[in-house]
Amino acid sequence: MVNRTVEDEKLETMRHSASHIMAEAVQSIFPGAKFAIGPAIENGFYYDFDLPRPLTPDDLPVIEAKMGEIIASNTPFIREEITREEARQLFAAQPYKLELINELPENEKLSVYRQGSFLDLCRGPHVKASGEVKAFKLINIAGAYWRGDEHQPMLQRIYGVAFDTREALEEHLARLEEAKNRDHRKLGRELEIFIFDDEVGPGLPLWLPNGGAMIEEIERLAKDVEFEHGYVRVKTPHLAKEDLFKHSGHLPYYAESMYPPMELEGVRYYIKPMNCPLHHKIFASKTRSYRDLPLRIAEYGTCYRYEKSGELLGLLRVRSMQMNDSHIYCSEKQFDQEFVGVISLYLEYFKIFGIKEYYMRLSTHHPNGLGKKYVNNPELWLKTEAMVRQAMNNHNVPYYEVADEAAFYGPKIDVQIKSAIGKEFTLATNQVDFAQAERCDLKFVNEKGEEERPLIIHRAPLGTHERFVGFLLEHYAGAFPVWLAPVQVTIIPVADRHLEYAGRLESDLRSRDIRVKIDARSERMNPKIRQAQLEKVPYMVVIGDKEVEAGTVSVRLRSGEQLPPQSSDAFIETVSRIIASRSQDLK
Amino acid sequence: MVNRTVEDEKLETMRHSASHIMAEAVQSIFPGAKFAIGPAIENGFYYDFDLPRPLTPDDLPVIEAKMGEIIASNTPFIREEITREEARQLFAAQPYKLELINELPENEKLSVYRQGSFLDLCRGPHVKASGEVKAFKLINIAGAYWRGDEHQPMLQRIYGVAFDTREALEEHLARLEEAKNRDHRKLGRELEIFIFDDEVGPGLPLWLPNGGAMIEEIERLAKDVEFEHGYVRVKTPHLAKEDLFKHSGHLPYYAESMYPPMELEGVRYYIKPMNCPLHHKIFASKTRSYRDLPLRIAEYGTCYRYEKSGELLGLLRVRSMQMNDSHIYCSEKQFDQEFVGVISLYLEYFKIFGIKEYYMRLSTHHPNGLGKKYVNNPELWLKTEAMVRQAMNNHNVPYYEVADEAAFYGPKIDVQIKSAIGKEFTLATNQVDFAQAERCDLKFVNEKGEEERPLIIHRAPLGTHERFVGFLLEHYAGAFPVWLAPVQVTIIPVADRHLEYAGRLESDLRSRDIRVKIDARSERMNPKIRQAQLEKVPYMVVIGDKEVEAGTVSVRLRSGEQLPPQSSDAFIETVSRIIASRSQDLK
Repeated sequence: MVNRTVEDEKLETMRHSASHIMAEAVQSIFPGAKFAIGPAIENGFYYDFDLPRPLTPDDLPVIEAKMGEIIASNTPFIREEITREEARQLFAAQPYKLELINELPENEKLSVYRQGSFLDLCRGPHVKASGEVKAFKLINIAGAYWRGDEHQPMLQRIYGVAFDTREALEEHLARLEEAKNRDHRKLGRELEIFIFDDEVGPGLPLWLPNGGAMIEEIERLAKDVEFEHGYVRVKTPHLAKEDLFKHSGHLPYYAESMYPPMELEGVRYYIKPMNCPLHHKIFASKTRSYRDLPLRIAEYGTCYRYEKSGELLGLLRVRSMQMNDSHIYCSEKQFDQEFVGVISLYLEYFKIFGIKEYYMRLSTHHPNGLGKKYVNNPELWLKTEAMVRQAMNNHNVPYYEVADEAAFYGPKIDVQIKSAIGKEFTLATNQVDFAQAERCDLKFVNEKGEEERPLIIHRAPLGTHERFVGFLLEHYAGAFPVWLAPVQVTIIPVADRHLEYAGRLESDLRSRDIRVKIDARSERMNPKIRQAQLEKVPYMVVIGDKEVEAGTVSVRLRSGEQLPPQSSDAFIETVSRIIASRSQDLK
Repeated sequence: MVNRTVEDEKLETMRHSASHIMAEAVQSIFPGAKFAIGPAIENGFYYDFDLPRPLTPDDLPVIEAKMGEIIASNTPFIREEITREEARQLFAAQPYKLELINELPENEKLSVYRQGSFLDLCRGPHVKASGEVKAFKLINIAGAYWRGDEHQPMLQRIYGVAFDTREALEEHLARLEEAKNRDHRKLGRELEIFIFDDEVGPGLPLWLPNGGAMIEEIERLAKDVEFEHGYVRVKTPHLAKEDLFKHSGHLPYYAESMYPPMELEGVRYYIKPMNCPLHHKIFASKTRSYRDLPLRIAEYGTCYRYEKSGELLGLLRVRSMQMNDSHIYCSEKQFDQEFVGVISLYLEYFKIFGIKEYYMRLSTHHPNGLGKKYVNNPELWLKTEAMVRQAMNNHNVPYYEVADEAAFYGPKIDVQIKSAIGKEFTLATNQVDFAQAERCDLKFVNEKGEEERPLIIHRAPLGTHERFVGFLLEHYAGAFPVWLAPVQVTIIPVADRHLEYAGRLESDLRSRDIRVKIDARSERMNPKIRQAQLEKVPYMVVIGDKEVEAGTVSVRLRSGEQLPPQSSDAFIETVSRIIASRSQDLK
C-alpha cells in the first residue's frame, strides 16, 4: 500500500483546522448553532451543523468571507486537557457534543481546542494558528443524518476543499468542474446513451440506441478476443429453481443480495445473481477428460442483484449486470498459464482503451475467518495463494497484497483503473475457486484415469456493461474512439440538391458497417456542425456543390481539424481501417 | 385455404373404416374390450380401448394379422338407423358408448355401422366393404384419457397409418423414420446443442458451446441484416415493475402466461413476457419528430412466459424465449413500405436457410369480438386490415385470410414454414398495432407541427432462438451449412509427429475466425473420421507425412467426398469465402 508522507499529514491537519475555522464563522453568523462533527476528508473537510434555518448556496460566500477574516487574524489554536465533568459544563448548550462526551471512557482526560471564541471537543492535532490555512473554498451543502442514522435528526453539512497553495486549489477546482462535465449521468443523458424509468424500476437502465451501439461493440471486442484465446460461448437462463442456488451455496447466505423468489407450480424460482452455478451445470453435462481442459466457458450473462434504492448511483451501482463473465476449468498444472492468460487479457484491454493507470490487488484469507468468511480448508488456501503469487511473479505483473479480503471460496485479484482525469473505478475481480468444484461435484478424468477436481477461475475483465460504459463515458468525456462512437459519421448536405449524393455516400458507408446518419434538416450548415459536435461525432462530412461536382468529400474532425478534400472512397477506407484497428486516432 | 378434394375425402373414409376394422380385430382378441372412439386423422386413424391388460408393441403384429384377415374377407359395412332406446340396449355392455348415446338429442335417429361381428355407433361414411382398405400399418400405442380429461379413466390408444397404395405407405413410413432421426431433442443431445437440467427448471434450456456458437451466428446474421435495413439496437432489462405491465395492458389480462411477481421494497416486479412495453419507453424517452420515423428498434430480448409443465416440448414449447424482436414506429404514409420491408426480410432469410415451402396467413378481427378479444375501434380495424392487404397485394406476396384470429391490438401475418422433410413449424408473427400507441401515449410531431400517433409493427422474422434452432436441427438433420456449424473444421493428425503442423493450421484457421478443433487423441485415423462424421463437421482435414512434407492439406467433406490435395492457404480461403457468403455448399 502507498505510505502516508509527512506532507500528507500536514495537509490533513490544515484541513481539519479549516473545518474548525468554518465552525467559528458559522457560530458568529448563527449564534444558536449546534455543532456535531467536523473532520478532514480527502481534498478538504466538512462540518455538520444544526442551524435555525436551511442554508442556501448564497450563504457560502458569507461564511467564506468570515473565515477569511479569521485566517487573516492568525488566531492561535490552543489545546487544553479537561475532565469529563468539566467538558459537560463547557458544552452544556451543545447536545451533540454532550452525546459524544458521554460515550468517552469515564476516567480519561478529554482534549478541547480553542481558537478565538470557538471551542471544540477534539483530539487534534491542529495548526498553530489560523493563518496556516492557505487556500480553501466551500463547495457544497448537503443533508446528513446525525451519526448517519436515518432515525436521528437531519443536520446540514458544508463541504470545503483546502490546499497548501492557491495553484493547487485552482487545479483541484478545475478537476472538479471537469469531473462534473464528465459525470456519466450527465453525459449519458446528453448523448442519449441510457435512461432510467420510474415504471421500469430503480437501478434498471434501458439502453437507448446509442448505448446499444456501444454495448454491441464492447461485446464484439470481448467475443473477438475470447475466440482468439480459445473460449467457447454458452447461454444460460436468467432464472432457475431455488434448488440450484441452495446447492451452489448462494442460498441462504447470499439471499439478501438476491431478488425475492417467484413461486410457480409449488416451486420457487430465483432470478440469477451470478452465472457460476449455471456454467457449472454445463461443465457437468458430460464426462470430462483432461483432454477437455482447460475449458473456458464465456457468456455475457445478465445477472440481477438487489442493492438498496438509496445506494444506487447512475450506472455505477445498479441492479442489473450484463457481465463479461467466464469460468475457466483447469487442472493444477494448467493454472499458472490460465491465470496469467486472464491477466494478459486485462492488459490487452487497457491498451485498447488507453487506460494508463491501474493496480492489481491480491486479497488473501485470514486464519481467523476460516469456517466463517472463508471455506475451512487452510491447506488449500495457502496453496492457491502461493499459486497466484507465483503466477503473478513469474510473469512480472505488479500487485500488492491485502490479507482478509479474499472471496469465500478462494483468493482474488481486484483490478482498479483510473480514468483519464484520475478518477478511480473498480473494474472487475479475478477469482480462484478451489471450493465450488467440490460442492457441485465437478470432476474430470486425469491422465491416469482417476477422477480429479478442476480448479475454477472466475473472471470478467470488462466488468459489466453498466459499470464499464459508466467508466468509458467519464474516461473519454463522451468523445469515444471511432469504433465505439454511437454515430461514426454525420453527413451534412449544404442544400436539398445535395441530398442525393449524400444518400449515396450514406449507403456506401453503411455497406461497410459504418454507423452513419444524414442531417437533412433545412438548417444552415453551421448549426448542423454544432449539433454533430455536441453529439461528439468523430467525422462530419460536408457535401456542397464543390463536392458533388468533384465527387469528393470535405471532412471535419470532431477535434475541429479540417482534412484536405479527398475522394469518398479514400475516406471510407480510412474510417474502415481506423475502426478495424480499434485505434484512438481519427486519421 | 386449400380445398379438400374428392381424393382427400375418399382417403379419410378409408382411414375411418380401417379404425373400425382394427376395433373388430381387437374385439376378437380381447373379448371383454370396451370401446371409446376411433376417428380418422391425418395420414391414418386411431381407436381408444379399455382393455383387460396393457398392450405391448408385440401385440401390434397380432392385431395387424387379424385385420389382414378381415380385409381379405371383404366383409360389407352396413349402416342402420335406430332409436336412442335401441342403441342403449345394443351398447348395454359398452359404458363409453352409452355415455355418448346419452348426450345425443333425444328425438333423433342414431346411426350404427356393422361389419362382421363388430357394431359401432357412428355417423359414417364408410367404405362399402373391408377389402377397400389397401395399405395400412399400426405404428404406436399411447395412453389417452377418456374425453381428454385427466380425471377420467386412462384408455389405450392404438395409432395406425393407411394409404391407398403400398408405395404411398412405404414412403410415409420412411418419412416417419427420417423425422424420428431428425427429432431436434435427439439431435440436440447427440450434437451437444442444449440440455435441460432438473435443478434449473422445465422449459429453460441451457445452451452448450455448440448451441452457443449457433446462437452467435444467428444473432450476427440478424444484426447484419437489420443494420443494413436501418434498424438500431437497444437493450432493456428482463424485469420491470408491475406498473409498467398494468399500463401496457398485459396485467391482469395476460397474467396467467406470466411468471408470478417478486416483491421488493413493497413493489411488485415481473420478469418480462414481451419486450414491447420497454421498447415503447425508449420511443417515449424524447420528443419525436416525423424526421425520426420510421424508428426501427431491435433487440434480441429474452422473455419468459409460463407454459404448463405438461405442455413443454423440447425447444418448441419452452418458458424462455430469446426473441429476434423489433418494433417499428412509423407514420401511416410509411406503413406500406415498412410492412413490406419486414416481409422481404422473411424472404431473405428463407433463401439463406433453404426454406422452400412457407405460407403467410393474414388474421383479421371479427365484429363480434370487438371490445372483448379485440380493441373496440371498428374503423381502425377495417382501415389497418385494408392497409395490410394492400401492402401484400402491392408487392405480390401470396397469403390467405382467416377471420377472427387477429391479435388484440391489430391484424397480423402468421408465417408457417416447412422443414426439408415437410414438417411444419410456426416461425413468427408480424403484427400491426394501432392501439398501443394510444394506450402508452406515444406520439410524434408531424410535418404540420401537430401531434400524431405512430403505427407500430411488431415483428420477429427469426422467431426465437429456441424455436428456430429446434427447426434448424430438424431441417438440416444436424448437418448445418458451414457458417452455422458449431465446429467447422476438424484437423486429424495421423500421428503425434504431425501435431505441430496441425497446430499451425489450427491457429491459421482460428485467426480467420473459423471454428476449428484438433482431434489429438492417440487413436487411428478412421475412428477419428468416424467421430467427426458423427458430429457432422463439414470439413475433416487429415494431416500425415505427405501433407507435412508438401505443405498441403487433404480434405474430406462431410458428404464423404475427398477434395484434391491443396495448399492450406487455398483451403482457408475457400472456407472463409463459403462462411462469408452463408452458402449451403461445401466447396
